[in-house]
Amino acid sequence: MEIFEALKKRHSYRGQFTDQKISRQTLLKIAEAAILAPSGCNKQTTEFVIVDDEAIVSKISALPGANMAVQTAKAYIVCLVDKDPKPAFEGMSFEVEDCAAAVENMLLAITALGFASVWVDGWLRREGRSEQIGLWLGVPESKKVRIILPLGVPAEQKAQPDKLPLGQRVWFNQYRNL
Amino acid sequence: MEIFEALKKRHSYRGQFTDQKISRQTLLKIAEAAILAPSGCNKQTTEFVIVDDEAIVSKISALPGANMAVQTAKAYIVCLVDKDPKPAFEGMSFEVEDCAAAVENMLLAITALGFASVWVDGWLRREGRSEQIGLWLGVPESKKVRIILPLGVPAEQKAQPDKLPLGQRVWFNQYRNL
Repeated sequence: MEIFEALKKRHSYRGQFTDQKISRQTLLKIAEAAILAPSGCNKQTTEFVIVDDEAIVSKISALPGANMAVQTAKAYIVCLVDKDPKPAFEGMSFEVEDCAAAVENMLLAITALGFASVWVDGWLRREGRSEQIGLWLGVPESKKVRIILPLGVPAEQKAQPDKLPLGQRVWFNQYRNL
Repeated sequence: MEIFEALKKRHSYRGQFTDQKISRQTLLKIAEAAILAPSGCNKQTTEFVIVDDEAIVSKISALPGANMAVQTAKAYIVCLVDKDPKPAFEGMSFEVEDCAAAVENMLLAITALGFASVWVDGWLRREGRSEQIGLWLGVPESKKVRIILPLGVPAEQKAQPDKLPLGQRVWFNQYRNL
């Protein structure tokens, strides 16, 4: 898929997935998009556990308060960062940014491959969900589950929500210059 | 450009740019890629000032310690976030992630359009550079310059640096499961 088409078609899919499974080859292609993302000082801080084991998939899908995409996902990509982010440059860490860039690359790849997903963050930080998933996946004490992406073939047609017009967020040379 | 080709070709370009200018149409196409990025609860928190005014370009390019890409850029995209990030969901803010996703979208668009750039962050946070650029662009007190992207046609051939093999960052179902 052409890049600008993927940018436009990518959307946060919180609906139901069909029963269609995702091959390991496809899952690895999505993970490869993550690996190709930039990271501060090329530190490559984000790690990934792809979950396609049915027993673990059903445990994640049954966590309380999950949206329909999480509930019906055929697989997940679980993104891990350090609990204590390591400095990359003059004491600064870029682990949140590294992870976000990798997630965005994957969302575009997922779109191009005909699947859908949604960037799941805040929900994980509540009621111990992140820690629970970490335990199921054998994530060490030094790492945390930062983002998960539920994966599947969308059963419903969705699109990007309305965005503010370009002129309300982008200006030339001076802030709010019209 | 096909999405996977753009993912592979995107790299952090810190070299010299040619004298070729970038049209406003192209600059707006890059900004449009930013606008299409996801943001936590669709809050669209990142704002953008495109700098192509020669007087401002030369001031930014002359900031001390700039890499060659910043020194020779024909334009910049300056990304702004709130100094006090606003809560989007249950008291949590996602402004850093929102900005990072927008930046990654732009880097892919820049690659596809035949230009190059590099994600400039840490350097801005030192010696008042972020604040100085904010003053030149009329950025209000409540906002800060978080990332800049120098833009131009690369004069040198560069590529992505070596990455860790997939098997050192990606596993199935269990952490470091081989």
